[in-house]
Amino acid sequence: MTSTIKVAVLGAAGRMGTNVCAAVEGAADLELVARLDAGDDIAAGLAASGADVVVDFTVPSVTEANVHAAIDAGMHVVVGTTGWDDDSRGRVTDHLARRAAEGVALGVLIAPNFGLSAVLAMTFAAKAARYFESVEVVELHHPDKVDAPSGTARHTARAIAAARAEAGVAPSPDATEDGWEARGMDVDGVRVHAVRLRGLVAHEEILLGNVGEQLSIRQDSFDRMSFMPGVLLGVREVGGRPGLTVGLEHVLDLS
Amino acid sequence: MTSTIKVAVLGAAGRMGTNVCAAVEGAADLELVARLDAGDDIAAGLAASGADVVVDFTVPSVTEANVHAAIDAGMHVVVGTTGWDDDSRGRVTDHLARRAAEGVALGVLIAPNFGLSAVLAMTFAAKAARYFESVEVVELHHPDKVDAPSGTARHTARAIAAARAEAGVAPSPDATEDGWEARGMDVDGVRVHAVRLRGLVAHEEILLGNVGEQLSIRQDSFDRMSFMPGVLLGVREVGGRPGLTVGLEHVLDLS
Amino acid sequence: MTSTIKVAVLGAAGRMGTNVCAAVEGAADLELVARLDAGDDIAAGLAASGADVVVDFTVPSVTEANVHAAIDAGMHVVVGTTGWDDDSRGRVTDHLARRAAEGVALGVLIAPNFGLSAVLAMTFAAKAARYFESVEVVELHHPDKVDAPSGTARHTARAIAAARAEAGVAPSPDATEDGWEARGMDVDGVRVHAVRLRGLVAHEEILLGNVGEQLSIRQDSFDRMSFMPGVLLGVREVGGRPGLTVGLEHVLDLS
Amino acid sequence: MTSTIKVAVLGAAGRMGTNVCAAVEGAADLELVARLDAGDDIAAGLAASGADVVVDFTVPSVTEANVHAAIDAGMHVVVGTTGWDDDSRGRVTDHLARRAAEGVALGVLIAPNFGLSAVLAMTFAAKAARYFESVEVVELHHPDKVDAPSGTARHTARAIAAARAEAGVAPSPDATEDGWEARGMDVDGVRVHAVRLRGLVAHEEILLGNVGEQLSIRQDSFDRMSFMPGVLLGVREVGGRPGLTVGLEHVLDLS
Repeated sequence: MTSTIKVAVLGAAGRMGTNVCAAVEGAADLELVARLDAGDDIAAGLAASGADVVVDFTVPSVTEANVHAAIDAGMHVVVGTTGWDDDSRGRVTDHLARRAAEGVALGVLIAPNFGLSAVLAMTFAAKAARYFESVEVVELHHPDKVDAPSGTARHTARAIAAARAEAGVAPSPDATEDGWEARGMDVDGVRVHAVRLRGLVAHEEILLGNVGEQLSIRQDSFDRMSFMPGVLLGVREVGGRPGLTVGLEHVLDLS
Repeated sequence: MTSTIKVAVLGAAGRMGTNVCAAVEGAADLELVARLDAGDDIAAGLAASGADVVVDFTVPSVTEANVHAAIDAGMHVVVGTTGWDDDSRGRVTDHLARRAAEGVALGVLIAPNFGLSAVLAMTFAAKAARYFESVEVVELHHPDKVDAPSGTARHTARAIAAARAEAGVAPSPDATEDGWEARGMDVDGVRVHAVRLRGLVAHEEILLGNVGEQLSIRQDSFDRMSFMPGVLLGVREVGGRPGLTVGLEHVLDLS
Repeated sequence: MTSTIKVAVLGAAGRMGTNVCAAVEGAADLELVARLDAGDDIAAGLAASGADVVVDFTVPSVTEANVHAAIDAGMHVVVGTTGWDDDSRGRVTDHLARRAAEGVALGVLIAPNFGLSAVLAMTFAAKAARYFESVEVVELHHPDKVDAPSGTARHTARAIAAARAEAGVAPSPDATEDGWEARGMDVDGVRVHAVRLRGLVAHEEILLGNVGEQLSIRQDSFDRMSFMPGVLLGVREVGGRPGLTVGLEHVLDLS
Repeated sequence: MTSTIKVAVLGAAGRMGTNVCAAVEGAADLELVARLDAGDDIAAGLAASGADVVVDFTVPSVTEANVHAAIDAGMHVVVGTTGWDDDSRGRVTDHLARRAAEGVALGVLIAPNFGLSAVLAMTFAAKAARYFESVEVVELHHPDKVDAPSGTARHTARAIAAARAEAGVAPSPDATEDGWEARGMDVDGVRVHAVRLRGLVAHEEILLGNVGEQLSIRQDSFDRMSFMPGVLLGVREVGGRPGLTVGLEHVLDLS
């Protein structure tokens, strides 16, 4: 990369935003040109920054407006804020299409998870799932988590189920007659187990089995800092992918 | 050990019995002196054998009679057959006491599980359980198993629960509000998860967690041959432990 | 699949060949039309069989001649026999090109490993390697193995090293000053550790780490039967891939 | 426990000491009565504190003098500072014996490791080692560590080797002819492997194998806070164990 990418961070005072600012400042090929947060005039701030890429880690109530402001300003966007649905994503796609018609090709990346190990585990599990007779998912988290199983584990199970359905693979065999309470939750036909243990953070393991063999894919997230390599990867790649991309896995080179 | 231990095997033609005979023949300090099975006169066969130790891998309907026949014959017994309850164990204890009063000190070992790794995993988990805030059990088996969770996992969970109760340890913390189906079965307050996967045989993992640390104890049984070291250990140790011993863990030196 | 694929097995009396014959007979979409072995006239046997696909699990001294005979007979080939090098593979490529010029499009698949879990672990590890700061390989085998590390582990390490070199990733950080003997073997800059343990068969784990996260990919081969799904997959796919393909990973759909 | 234990902390301003003070303050049955550090008059400070138990996390150059001062003051001591050898430990034993002769029964606990998971993993591995044909140790740490293998792994291997020697167990089988560099370091006949991976902290796994089965004991230390339960356990137990105790495992109830 011959020139530095200029980055503006929205939600810069938040927990994730603070880390993103530090990570951008620590990267030789990136330059932090603006830290904006609640109370700032986003449009003016972006215009003044001259940023190439805007990173948004704000809150669901403002993230969509921020993205449109960045598109108006002619900047690519990487979004880690939650709360997006089909409608709001559709409006971004439309906006990007209008800009492209004006000759301004911009990319927006919305990713529910920037953890490389989590994204890769999910992606590999889905790719492998059609080649194994059995597959189950185990997620492990700290005991203060109120929902089970984790969103990542549900998402993984659904991706596995979809891949198996598309390949015409039969459901995982299961002769259980007694004790279904021990067999986890059925998510689209894939059993998902949730372990809660003091000392853990966020972990997921996908187990795949055939006669005589097993494949296990496990990811461990020990710390929020683990999202930074994924965010920086998004910043570097988003400019080369015009239009809306949903999911970090689509900017990874897994060919 | 200066002299060879003479061993008679009951149920010698069965799957386990066949393996036991081969294992005894392969051990330099043991001598196989009788193979008896259904249809044989057990009392006569034992008397003729001159065995020191009788190993019983038969069926629930005959195992108790076999043990009493062996005690009558003045022989120690190692039992791997299932189906024992408090009453039948009590009758063995009484019989051994009468023989001891006659000056004949005999030992009987009844073990539900001769797998060293399984027995040690369970024992260590119970010992460690009072020192950790959280503990859960995951068992993994082939998908043709009809009951969940496994007997070993239930037994492990109960031993953990008893050890924590005795030490006055609070239940494992758990903030789960939604998705209890993913949280496994509650066995005496310990969560037990059952995974079913083609390619697996019988496996158990106990996870213990404190702030900042985890202890994991896992055992894998790949093959029925894995019970042989435990059976031979029982054969070697039972003579030195007069009375009834229930559980291989009590003949292990874990001090 | 509308029609049955007719399969001839060479080396049918060998350990692997016997398993392949059984697996083909057990598959609804495949038909076993010939079992040939040492002493048989391969060309005549193939001609008589009317096979669509030939599977070769023979020995290094005859496998190349078998493949050419199959190509002459107008049949696709799946090869699990070892001993191939650049020269012998080149001759197969040339032969296939001549046949293609005659209008006969044939496929040959030569795979050093038909274990799906092993092939997928290796492939996923190589794809993931560029996204992590650190990567190491641990292989675990039974203690009768004479070479360390395993061929699969060396191959995995080389694939990882090549992927990282291509992506311009720095070597894994390592501050070790004392005790290099504990740090495993350096294979193209990737540390490879070999564990030998009674009870194990063939296992490999690839560990990848970033700040705050880890990705672990593990495969366990418990039994030679685990190669059968990969062989059948090769049989089903080879007809659709004219020319020479080396490695099962290239017939897997991992897009 | 009917009354509160009064605790003085030496090295209270250090990293570990600060954590210890917080942990003592957070425990209902303990009372923090003194925080002393370099520059303070230890003897006077202790006398003024009225402490029952003194915790020393200072530096090797002063820890021995601190312990003698505490014994003089009639207080039990828990020591986490390194640098002790046979001579310095002998002087503590002598001092404790003189005090006992005066009718003052005091306990001193010196522990190289207060991590419960680490201490239990080591202890369990040593107990199990005589029952398995094969055993190897794998330790995993962050890549900034300069020595390999870790002190804990060396200590574990030595304890395993001693237990196997005492039980007359043969060395782990190993047919390796080529590639010894991959087989780890030989520590008293036990192979020890060291993995270095960004994102890890301090981890150890002990693998034990017999025909058809495996036992794996793994411990993960994610954070220095994981030492606090062990320190508090020492504080609660040291008063009931007169004389010198070396190693946290000796105050655990593992019977």
